[in-house]
Amino acid sequence: MDERPAGTKLSGFQRLLHPRSIAVIGGREAAEVIRQCRRMGYSGLIYPVHPRHEKVEGVPCFRTLADLPEVPDAAFVAVRRELSIEVVRELAAMGAGGAICYASGFRETGGAGEDLQAALIEASGDMPILGPNCYGLINYLEGALLWPDQHGGQRRERGVAILTQSGNMAINLTMNQRGLPIAFLVAMGNQAKVGLAAMADALLEDPRVSAIGLHIEGLGDAAAFVTLAAKARARGVPLVALKVGRSEAAAALTFSHTASLAGADAVADAFLRRLGIGRVHNVPAFLETLKLLHQGGPLTGRDLASMSCSGGEASLIADAIDSRKLRFRSLDPAQRQRVKDTLSDLVHVSNPLDYHTFIWADETRMTETFAAMLGCGFDLSFLILDFPRADRCETHDWDITLRALEAASRRTGGRCAVVASLPENLPEARAEDILARGMIPFGGIEEALTAAEVAAAIGDAWRRDWPEPVTIPPLTKGEAVSMSEWAAKQRLRAAGLPLPRGGLAANAAEAMVIAEALGFPVVLKAVGEGLAHKSELGAVRLGLADADSVAHAAEELLPMGSGLLVEEMIGDGLAEVIVGCQRDPVIGPYLLLGSGGVLVELIADSVLLPLPASRAEIEEGLSRLKVAQLLAGYRGKPPGDRAALIAAVEAIQRFALSEAGRLIELDVNPVIVRPHGKGVVAVDAFMRIVKGEKNG
Amino acid sequence: MDERPAGTKLSGFQRLLHPRSIAVIGGREAAEVIRQCRRMGYSGLIYPVHPRHEKVEGVPCFRTLADLPEVPDAAFVAVRRELSIEVVRELAAMGAGGAICYASGFRETGGAGEDLQAALIEASGDMPILGPNCYGLINYLEGALLWPDQHGGQRRERGVAILTQSGNMAINLTMNQRGLPIAFLVAMGNQAKVGLAAMADALLEDPRVSAIGLHIEGLGDAAAFVTLAAKARARGVPLVALKVGRSEAAAALTFSHTASLAGADAVADAFLRRLGIGRVHNVPAFLETLKLLHQGGPLTGRDLASMSCSGGEASLIADAIDSRKLRFRSLDPAQRQRVKDTLSDLVHVSNPLDYHTFIWADETRMTETFAAMLGCGFDLSFLILDFPRADRCETHDWDITLRALEAASRRTGGRCAVVASLPENLPEARAEDILARGMIPFGGIEEALTAAEVAAAIGDAWRRDWPEPVTIPPLTKGEAVSMSEWAAKQRLRAAGLPLPRGGLAANAAEAMVIAEALGFPVVLKAVGEGLAHKSELGAVRLGLADADSVAHAAEELLPMGSGLLVEEMIGDGLAEVIVGCQRDPVIGPYLLLGSGGVLVELIADSVLLPLPASRAEIEEGLSRLKVAQLLAGYRGKPPGDRAALIAAVEAIQRFALSEAGRLIELDVNPVIVRPHGKGVVAVDAFMRIVKGEKNG
Repeated sequence: MDERPAGTKLSGFQRLLHPRSIAVIGGREAAEVIRQCRRMGYSGLIYPVHPRHEKVEGVPCFRTLADLPEVPDAAFVAVRRELSIEVVRELAAMGAGGAICYASGFRETGGAGEDLQAALIEASGDMPILGPNCYGLINYLEGALLWPDQHGGQRRERGVAILTQSGNMAINLTMNQRGLPIAFLVAMGNQAKVGLAAMADALLEDPRVSAIGLHIEGLGDAAAFVTLAAKARARGVPLVALKVGRSEAAAALTFSHTASLAGADAVADAFLRRLGIGRVHNVPAFLETLKLLHQGGPLTGRDLASMSCSGGEASLIADAIDSRKLRFRSLDPAQRQRVKDTLSDLVHVSNPLDYHTFIWADETRMTETFAAMLGCGFDLSFLILDFPRADRCETHDWDITLRALEAASRRTGGRCAVVASLPENLPEARAEDILARGMIPFGGIEEALTAAEVAAAIGDAWRRDWPEPVTIPPLTKGEAVSMSEWAAKQRLRAAGLPLPRGGLAANAAEAMVIAEALGFPVVLKAVGEGLAHKSELGAVRLGLADADSVAHAAEELLPMGSGLLVEEMIGDGLAEVIVGCQRDPVIGPYLLLGSGGVLVELIADSVLLPLPASRAEIEEGLSRLKVAQLLAGYRGKPPGDRAALIAAVEAIQRFALSEAGRLIELDVNPVIVRPHGKGVVAVDAFMRIVKGEKNG
Repeated sequence: MDERPAGTKLSGFQRLLHPRSIAVIGGREAAEVIRQCRRMGYSGLIYPVHPRHEKVEGVPCFRTLADLPEVPDAAFVAVRRELSIEVVRELAAMGAGGAICYASGFRETGGAGEDLQAALIEASGDMPILGPNCYGLINYLEGALLWPDQHGGQRRERGVAILTQSGNMAINLTMNQRGLPIAFLVAMGNQAKVGLAAMADALLEDPRVSAIGLHIEGLGDAAAFVTLAAKARARGVPLVALKVGRSEAAAALTFSHTASLAGADAVADAFLRRLGIGRVHNVPAFLETLKLLHQGGPLTGRDLASMSCSGGEASLIADAIDSRKLRFRSLDPAQRQRVKDTLSDLVHVSNPLDYHTFIWADETRMTETFAAMLGCGFDLSFLILDFPRADRCETHDWDITLRALEAASRRTGGRCAVVASLPENLPEARAEDILARGMIPFGGIEEALTAAEVAAAIGDAWRRDWPEPVTIPPLTKGEAVSMSEWAAKQRLRAAGLPLPRGGLAANAAEAMVIAEALGFPVVLKAVGEGLAHKSELGAVRLGLADADSVAHAAEELLPMGSGLLVEEMIGDGLAEVIVGCQRDPVIGPYLLLGSGGVLVELIADSVLLPLPASRAEIEEGLSRLKVAQLLAGYRGKPPGDRAALIAAVEAIQRFALSEAGRLIELDVNPVIVRPHGKGVVAVDAFMRIVKGEKNG
């Protein structure tokens, strides 16, 4: 069955993915490509090209590309790096669809390799190339294996696509015995020309691709991911990322740590979240999540059920869900009664449900119990079931259990899954069978819950309104300057951010005058360009209660900066929040919200929101913070002015967007949140900006 | 080979574990026990007992126990619950070693079942019984299967023992295909007479038991675990617990939440940690940790190495270790050079090491590289290696890699493991082979790291000095009273805890006199029996700066309690710490240390230490707190008086121990930590105590 996209003029990309003819250029690897294509029953034509061999794997060879009887859709180029460039040039010139460049020694080695990679790109013209330093791609739908090695997969009619930056991981992923049908496997290599997002975008054209898994070491082109995510959502094909690089994941919360890798990963995490791209952190969870997404797509909610014939598994999964954004929703009394009616009186009905072994091997009664549970409207129901080893045990009773679950699922329309507590206790043939019967086979309780959590997050993101993408200008080139607190505050005040009343003083006498006018107590700070970390430097004096204290403090602070800032002291703060804006080199500017004040590093409580963040995203982001508890009325205190805080965040975002071409970083810390109705006050601000005309 | 413990008079326990004869009483299950014993080559005698059958599974039956030709070592009793009691009585009377009680319907059903369980215990006399409501036990060393069902295991000469409270989990665990040799598998049932700790203790007598895994739903007898852990340590047999019940794991940090399950689990966690019993949270990690412990015992430290032929796996494991108490120690320059000398110049040497594929299938060069890494003195070195599916692929090159690793391990003495990123990519036969060659086979990167982390924690605990166990008296019966802050503080002052200067006032005038004597600012609080949550009630006024303020505050606070407490205001605090003492019904009294003051619930930062805690444990516990950062000199502030804080914790512990029979709970919150050399001050205290003579 040939389901390749129709159309007389396929793009080079589509010709590469669905080749009707393949040229293999080179020796050992080229021969292996032929063997693998043959093994998988590839029905297209294969043309080996070799200057000296008569035949490769029994297939007659062509001396040169020019000798080929037709222009190939795809080419596997496995010759040394310099020659690869010439072969690619020739393929592009003759109008080949695309090429895999197997050779290494390009950008990944630095030095001369960088130049060679540039030459390769130039040589390829309009033709897509995968690699260089690339293992290739496998199309299991049509048995087209542009792949120079063994693998563990098989032909499929529909399945997931997996894109990885590691050829070795690609091979290992094909060895999985989890029943996950893989339609495409793509090793990306150096991504000289074709990046992850572009390749995934091309794969979305094939309706047989049910979900796409991306193993990401670096995002590359953020804009391409934005486009990809929107297209994936429109087509209903979920994306999940195994993104590495979260190490040193702690804070980097303040401006002095922006350069850290951990920060970059946290931004990437926020970016993927915004785009509804699920994220997992290990290989088994990657595959299990793809399996869930393949079988029915994202979850519609976070309400799960669990059924097991033993309390042991019920406790295990109850614990395992505890720190996750999922819940085992309680049954209402009518639901509980319906389940109870199917079971022995000795069974206590709850969710997770331990249905005991009384109904074991009784297909009718099991079906009734499962149907009663599945009929309760959960987003996903698990049956925890480990299969015995078929080499040493009878498994007939397990067939009965599966039939009962399938019948219950068909009767109720309830989405359901079988979960083995040990992956090996769900043999491959069982997994394939469960999938074929419309259920999801999961190997491992933790992996099943991760899959559900990720699928629910994708569902959430797909249901949200997505903001129109905004074009953020690149950062202007120029000298970076740290603005004084005073100057920064004036800019922010103009943007609508509420600040403390106060004024700038040049000396102690002026400070005393301002303080008298404000009323005591006041705060006194040394200010000046480049003066950051004022608290640590002792350049801030809080709660000065009279003129003498102000004069005394002023004498001490004056030498630290170029002036003194005298401000009212905010006495009724309920919470201190940091609102920052930083700029990631890949993803661009993003807001940082978190616990602020002196606790900022201590409790590592922050969320990141790529710009522009909608009000709903800001609200949801705040709700994820620990400091949100202080806003809700904490330990007898009144609730904080949450609306004013959100307005302040929006004001800061507006400012950041209006200055996006020049703003390097902004930290408003803390924004003091006062009781409901009394607003918020931004008592300190730090800003680094590219010097330009406006700020001279 | 019969390696049963020597000695002419084995205890009943040992006869049950190592039976030379087995009586099986009952129908279907009894027959299955015979089949399973036969299948596993049990060489002892089996006596079926049945009132009507001539033969069971071809073995001639005895009508009654009295007809048996000898007193059996073990009996599998699979008759209905009431009859079970009589059979057990008869077995005990005739001097049988021990019995499995298979029947259910005892305590687990409540009601009449409770009485039946009591009767069963009474009937058993001095004879150990496993159960009731119990699947039984498997001895894979001698093929003695007191087990009425199929299972997936096989005979072993040495292995781990696994004890579980779930028969179903027991069966599923035997189905694992991870190469883990299981010597004993015990389903505990209701633990009417024989608890987890007692059974594990008995298993420690067998030198062929390499490690013991405990699936724990409830600890039961804490003292038995203390004894068990000490014996396990003395014999060098590590214990690891899959303890369920961590749900609602958040805080329960303050006294009002003590009853929560989550609190109980946190205490159990601290208890297991103290005893060097490793803890895991899922089934695969349980088995992988047991495998590591089986092969070489606990780790001597936390320095790991990782080697892989691809950067993909190196990044994955670098991420996966990030939040764990393990590290990939960097190589020193000489070590780096030695590794570099074995590899292509293109390889960047680091840890984790991506050694690339240049040396692939070259046994000599691989051995050199592996030996260079293993020679660097790591506590454990991982080789990440996924095996191809043997049904579809060649695996010869993988044999080479394994031989190279084994040779490197032998040459250097370096402990090493093979880790497959997917468990199924480490086939069972490979796992068995790797284990036989002295290395550890791990299925899954996360599981391998969990195993290493747990094994290192056990190693740490075994190297520590263990405090002598202290006998804590049970809580006296009597009325519980909440002491007033003032009364509580007087008790604590007597125990050596530093408190603020201050005094008790009956009215505003007295308060003003005390305040003048203390010097301003002062703190004023309403006090009285049962007056807790003073901050939330507004019963605390801080920073009163003059006599008028005191008078005004006194008028407002007087109606709230029975008196006023006037105290100096501590102005130079660097951190606020909560030090509490609570009592767990199973584990007894324990200290709680954490971030104190108003943040106590917000940041959920606490450690628990069962009493008595050594100074080293207190120091280590404090170092695990986030608030420890504030003690170390945070953001330009001076370091806090850590020594005084530790002394204060010790004073509180001394008090708690001296009052252990009456103290229900104690919360000293906060202890304000002042700068180094200036001590600490306990500014608030709450105590609930059983009313007795001392306190009238």
